[in-house]
Amino acid sequence: MQIGVIGESQPSLEGKKLAFEVGVEIAKAKAILICGGLSGVMEEASRGAKSQGGLTVGILPGTDKATANPYIDIPIVTGLDQARNIIIIRSSQAVIAIEGSYGTLSEMAFCLKLGVPLIGLKTWKLNRENHEIPPIIYAQTAKEAVEIAISKGKKVEND
Amino acid sequence: MQIGVIGESQPSLEGKKLAFEVGVEIAKAKAILICGGLSGVMEEASRGAKSQGGLTVGILPGTDKATANPYIDIPIVTGLDQARNIIIIRSSQAVIAIEGSYGTLSEMAFCLKLGVPLIGLKTWKLNRENHEIPPIIYAQTAKEAVEIAISKGKKVEND
Amino acid sequence: MQIGVIGESQPSLEGKKLAFEVGVEIAKAKAILICGGLSGVMEEASRGAKSQGGLTVGILPGTDKATANPYIDIPIVTGLDQARNIIIIRSSQAVIAIEGSYGTLSEMAFCLKLGVPLIGLKTWKLNRENHEIPPIIYAQTAKEAVEIAISKGKKVEND
Amino acid sequence: MQIGVIGESQPSLEGKKLAFEVGVEIAKAKAILICGGLSGVMEEASRGAKSQGGLTVGILPGTDKATANPYIDIPIVTGLDQARNIIIIRSSQAVIAIEGSYGTLSEMAFCLKLGVPLIGLKTWKLNRENHEIPPIIYAQTAKEAVEIAISKGKKVEND
Repeated sequence: MQIGVIGESQPSLEGKKLAFEVGVEIAKAKAILICGGLSGVMEEASRGAKSQGGLTVGILPGTDKATANPYIDIPIVTGLDQARNIIIIRSSQAVIAIEGSYGTLSEMAFCLKLGVPLIGLKTWKLNRENHEIPPIIYAQTAKEAVEIAISKGKKVEND
Repeated sequence: MQIGVIGESQPSLEGKKLAFEVGVEIAKAKAILICGGLSGVMEEASRGAKSQGGLTVGILPGTDKATANPYIDIPIVTGLDQARNIIIIRSSQAVIAIEGSYGTLSEMAFCLKLGVPLIGLKTWKLNRENHEIPPIIYAQTAKEAVEIAISKGKKVEND
Repeated sequence: MQIGVIGESQPSLEGKKLAFEVGVEIAKAKAILICGGLSGVMEEASRGAKSQGGLTVGILPGTDKATANPYIDIPIVTGLDQARNIIIIRSSQAVIAIEGSYGTLSEMAFCLKLGVPLIGLKTWKLNRENHEIPPIIYAQTAKEAVEIAISKGKKVEND
Repeated sequence: MQIGVIGESQPSLEGKKLAFEVGVEIAKAKAILICGGLSGVMEEASRGAKSQGGLTVGILPGTDKATANPYIDIPIVTGLDQARNIIIIRSSQAVIAIEGSYGTLSEMAFCLKLGVPLIGLKTWKLNRENHEIPPIIYAQTAKEAVEIAISKGKKVEND
């Protein structure tokens, strides 16, 4: 199973800690970590996964694989700038959003658009009058987030 | 000037009316309308623009230009599915969001990410604790939305 | 009808002259010129089209519309780098290749892949043992190239 | 190191055999195989790599990871149709082309455009008057092709 982790390059200290723990739990669950390959949440999650011997994939926006953080095993070099965001989502059976700025928000929107299960940690709240409430599952801890992601991801696989 | 209009394929009746009026005002302002080229808000805005002799561009997600609505003058056929959303935003000096579902939400996120002025009509409200309030300018009428878009778009051009 | 013109940024003098004439003939035929929006063949073709009051669309690889040549009416800003090449092809009913380097070669390949009629002027010759001869129509003059493009493009439209 | 293998869905019997052997040699060299993830050359190369315990990545054009061949370890789901071709090239330190039709030709063009070392096995010959001869290295056997790819890829890494 491939689990996506999304979040910004400059998270809070708490965001970094959550990202590392999410990476640890993903690797413990023997899932592959998919992320944007850069710094901040992406780097901390990758570092967490590698601390447990996990496998990490970075879907890079630029044209140079040297932009990948040091914990990326497999750099996918898109050259598509932010248009690469949707590839992270499509390649994941479930996605965990940690904090996040506008790039992350675009990725959350693609999860919702494509029906990819989306678990939130300290991230965006969204609402629109006369529109369904977006089915984001807000978790409190990294462990809870990954458990839900694995469970929802398996369900997607079996459907 | 190129003004983007974003919104879903199945808007409310009020959303359709707003979209038509937005298209009318964009054409009256001699701006080119950029949109996703499909139905709903995209079609009504294009119809409004054509009612005033405006010029319309549809950035299509699919591989067939026949999917463009009948009011598109210039179909741009991307074959990129939802990855085409960011092209609409990059090609616009300002963007007006009308209602909208998750595809629209991704486009709003790209506006915020890229610093493209974003005017909202009955659309998403976004907030995240410890994050700046997203600089969406909420308007009440189509005319007001287009006036702001033109004004902000001109400012972007001159900077 | 939308006719694509492809070619490199640094064509020969003869290539520039051909590109200008192709642009002239496309505008005379009341077709819209689609191109990559940059310099060289793209600029000369756009300049030719504008000299006859034609309409020009530039599908730009970068993130800045200021990279468009001065003869582009409608810049489409993709931010996709060379991944934008296929959009030029998909958005054209027929394509004329003038000289060209490797970017142009990728666009010719997409024409052949997608079945978009491809007319060549002083451009690549391709062959592979045990493979059909690629259906590129080699023309001798700009006028001949555009006549074939219009004729083939109309046929595609009617099919 | 990541080595790309490109080729068509319907290769000849000889092409299939070459692809399998190329996959075997890539895995023996401890390199990661990058390919388009579908059938034909892509599947045979992946099968070869897995027969030696290698790791395989499939950059898929569609929106469904179920389209990956059974020998793909990590499906990257792009939804970009043929615009995904360039991602295969950008993610590889060297690329081996086996036979190939027009999609493969577009990938070869991107190798040449981006300066990614390109080794050919029974594939396209390209020429254009007044243009440099494309620096494709034609090999005779799978083993030779992979040896050159590894050697050239290492050189790229060190530069």
